[in-house]
Amino acid sequence: MEPIKIGLLGLGTVGGGTVNVLTRNAQEIARRAGRGIQISHAAAKYFNPNLIHGLDQIIHISKDAWAVVNDPEVKIIVELIGGDTIARDLILKAIENGKQIVTANKALIAKHGNAIFKAAQNKGVTVAFEAAVAGGIPIIKALREGLTANHIHWIAGIINGTANFILTEMRTKGRNFEEVLAEAQACGYAEADPTFDVMGIDAAHKLTILASIAFGIPLQFDKVYTEGINHIDPIDVAYAQELGYRIKLVGITKHVDTGIELRVHPALIPEPCLLANVDGVMNAVLVQGDAVGSTLYYGAGAGSEPTASAVVADIVDVVRTLTTDPEHRVPHLAFQPKEMSNLPILSIEQVETAYYLRLNVEDKVGVMAGIASILATEGISIEAIQQKEQPDGAQWVPLIMLTHEVTELCMNKAIQRIETLEHVKGSVVRIRLEQLDS
Amino acid sequence: MEPIKIGLLGLGTVGGGTVNVLTRNAQEIARRAGRGIQISHAAAKYFNPNLIHGLDQIIHISKDAWAVVNDPEVKIIVELIGGDTIARDLILKAIENGKQIVTANKALIAKHGNAIFKAAQNKGVTVAFEAAVAGGIPIIKALREGLTANHIHWIAGIINGTANFILTEMRTKGRNFEEVLAEAQACGYAEADPTFDVMGIDAAHKLTILASIAFGIPLQFDKVYTEGINHIDPIDVAYAQELGYRIKLVGITKHVDTGIELRVHPALIPEPCLLANVDGVMNAVLVQGDAVGSTLYYGAGAGSEPTASAVVADIVDVVRTLTTDPEHRVPHLAFQPKEMSNLPILSIEQVETAYYLRLNVEDKVGVMAGIASILATEGISIEAIQQKEQPDGAQWVPLIMLTHEVTELCMNKAIQRIETLEHVKGSVVRIRLEQLDS
Repeated sequence: MEPIKIGLLGLGTVGGGTVNVLTRNAQEIARRAGRGIQISHAAAKYFNPNLIHGLDQIIHISKDAWAVVNDPEVKIIVELIGGDTIARDLILKAIENGKQIVTANKALIAKHGNAIFKAAQNKGVTVAFEAAVAGGIPIIKALREGLTANHIHWIAGIINGTANFILTEMRTKGRNFEEVLAEAQACGYAEADPTFDVMGIDAAHKLTILASIAFGIPLQFDKVYTEGINHIDPIDVAYAQELGYRIKLVGITKHVDTGIELRVHPALIPEPCLLANVDGVMNAVLVQGDAVGSTLYYGAGAGSEPTASAVVADIVDVVRTLTTDPEHRVPHLAFQPKEMSNLPILSIEQVETAYYLRLNVEDKVGVMAGIASILATEGISIEAIQQKEQPDGAQWVPLIMLTHEVTELCMNKAIQRIETLEHVKGSVVRIRLEQLDS
Repeated sequence: MEPIKIGLLGLGTVGGGTVNVLTRNAQEIARRAGRGIQISHAAAKYFNPNLIHGLDQIIHISKDAWAVVNDPEVKIIVELIGGDTIARDLILKAIENGKQIVTANKALIAKHGNAIFKAAQNKGVTVAFEAAVAGGIPIIKALREGLTANHIHWIAGIINGTANFILTEMRTKGRNFEEVLAEAQACGYAEADPTFDVMGIDAAHKLTILASIAFGIPLQFDKVYTEGINHIDPIDVAYAQELGYRIKLVGITKHVDTGIELRVHPALIPEPCLLANVDGVMNAVLVQGDAVGSTLYYGAGAGSEPTASAVVADIVDVVRTLTTDPEHRVPHLAFQPKEMSNLPILSIEQVETAYYLRLNVEDKVGVMAGIASILATEGISIEAIQQKEQPDGAQWVPLIMLTHEVTELCMNKAIQRIETLEHVKGSVVRIRLEQLDS
């Protein structure tokens, strides 16, 4: 069988990695796929010729992405430009032209996936997006195909490497957020504009996709509650560790009686949990299904070749299903389009979690009684309490509390009242706590 | 589309779990598969009616497995009998009858898979076997489809839950092998005949399958080096822990310059490695690919519903590819049948690993020099050395050494010579040590 012809859009980090992997492992990939895979046409605004050796001598490279999308020889378009404007227009045009699509673009899928998949379905083509979530970890395949037997209860993932790197450094070296971030930027681990990573937006894109596939709901990026790690104080990282927990930026989506939770925020995770031990830039996704129980998927969540690994796996998958009638292919969002559900997404006030609280209090009789009475009124029960030693000469002592599960609404009310108490100073620090058991 | 009809062979632990999952999640599974899945005919020597409620009222159950295999209405045969005699005959007959096959039978695939896949290929049917390795963890799918882009360097897996449970108890509670095994048998975690689990045979079946899929080599169960955990002394578990390692029964297969390593044995794993933290009955498989780097897959490796989760995922996969022409399906062993490789399997003497050694020596001048000189002659360099305190009144003291990597052949020679030394008592305890870095 003659090689399948690929059109490649973008030759940056992931595009370069894809070229290199397809070139280096060409023979081994063809031995698996039963067919060669050939990049026949590529477009990029610019690319580093040192990164991709001699590429322009073997394939046609231009700056015209539309020429690639309209090239009749090209059967599969691999979109590695990123962003959700030009990339969207190019993909929609490629679909109109009957091309199969492979993309690593999480923002695009999270925000415009519903429309893109509908267009693809109408045209009978596939849009594959394994590389959009957790880089090289085949988590989309695991959820969409490996766990089809299960009613999924919840997913919790460390799905942003930069945020995980920062929190790992804060814990292991006692450094503060700004210092680690600055170093990560200097080393190229973090983007010049780190907002997407540290504010949880990138993780929210990925969580949107995971939730949709797990529960058969439309992609609803705008409904994700998103909170970053920029406000995490090293003292809380240290106190959490003393209590047997690690603070991680997690994406959590949960199927509860009243609907679907969809939230990205820092959380305390118990140390014995594997997820708490995923350090540095690594990613991991923990899935709880009713039949399988807990399964965890771990690996590099970003980077040139790990992401390319997922892109190329998608290309092989697409090649394999070219002759399959579209209704026998794996549905884009795991569930058949007509079988999607409209389960409501809960607001963060409706979400129930346990909490870690840190207050600065005066070490006086009756202070604790006042706080405990407010918590009791709001139905919040205390799991553990620790009064730290008073720093020399300080009037205020840190008081740490772990609570049982309660709705965010009740916790908000309680904190608002506690902050008005005379012997409590400043704001209450509040970080959610997830036991992650079934 | 009308439901697909399944013939089920075996209604034991996994068979019962499969019925229960298919019944409980029927609607959700059909929403994914686009088609109902109906067990229309089942055969079992005996089954527990309390486990599978009202089953005999909805499906046809008999003791005649051949009637199921020959039932023209049945499109997919799900073999959950186990063993490699009757199960093999039934599967070969079902293939001859043009049925698709799903099986959880690791022994059968490891020992007779080459012939079974050949027969299936000739007939244009699929034999799916996700449940044969690591229960509910979709590791076959990850390796065969998720990592197609990669040249796989090595795989290391904790793929026997019983052995992992015993080693975990030995470490956390300081108990000895026989005691924990007896308890595991009493609780039903371990089989009445635990040989397959504790001697590494079950893990060797699974490793055979993983190696074949990773490297594109035929299944060669008879070439796996297999060593059990029955000789592990609690003192070595404790010493390993003092040195920052945990002892695990691992299946390791590695692509090295001279061929393929294929071995199951206890090994010291560094504590910071996630694999070292996989405890109790849980399983995990760590895969090292050239593009993706390290990825790890964790979950329940056995049990009724976790295994059923994999069986049902395979059924859905098979349903989806019913209309695909056979040459576009994922090849049974990941590589196209005509593209399999005949890389040699190395003997254990050719394998290079690091070692943990424990000797009982007399605390005398010159003893260490004698040992060190033998190691040096065999080209073995010492990474760390610890002389333990002499127990009160004892003439002999334990000497612990960690070595750098060396071939097993050299280590055998060195140990043989060391054991002849006058001031060394008894046998040298030797456990391999795996750093598991890339």
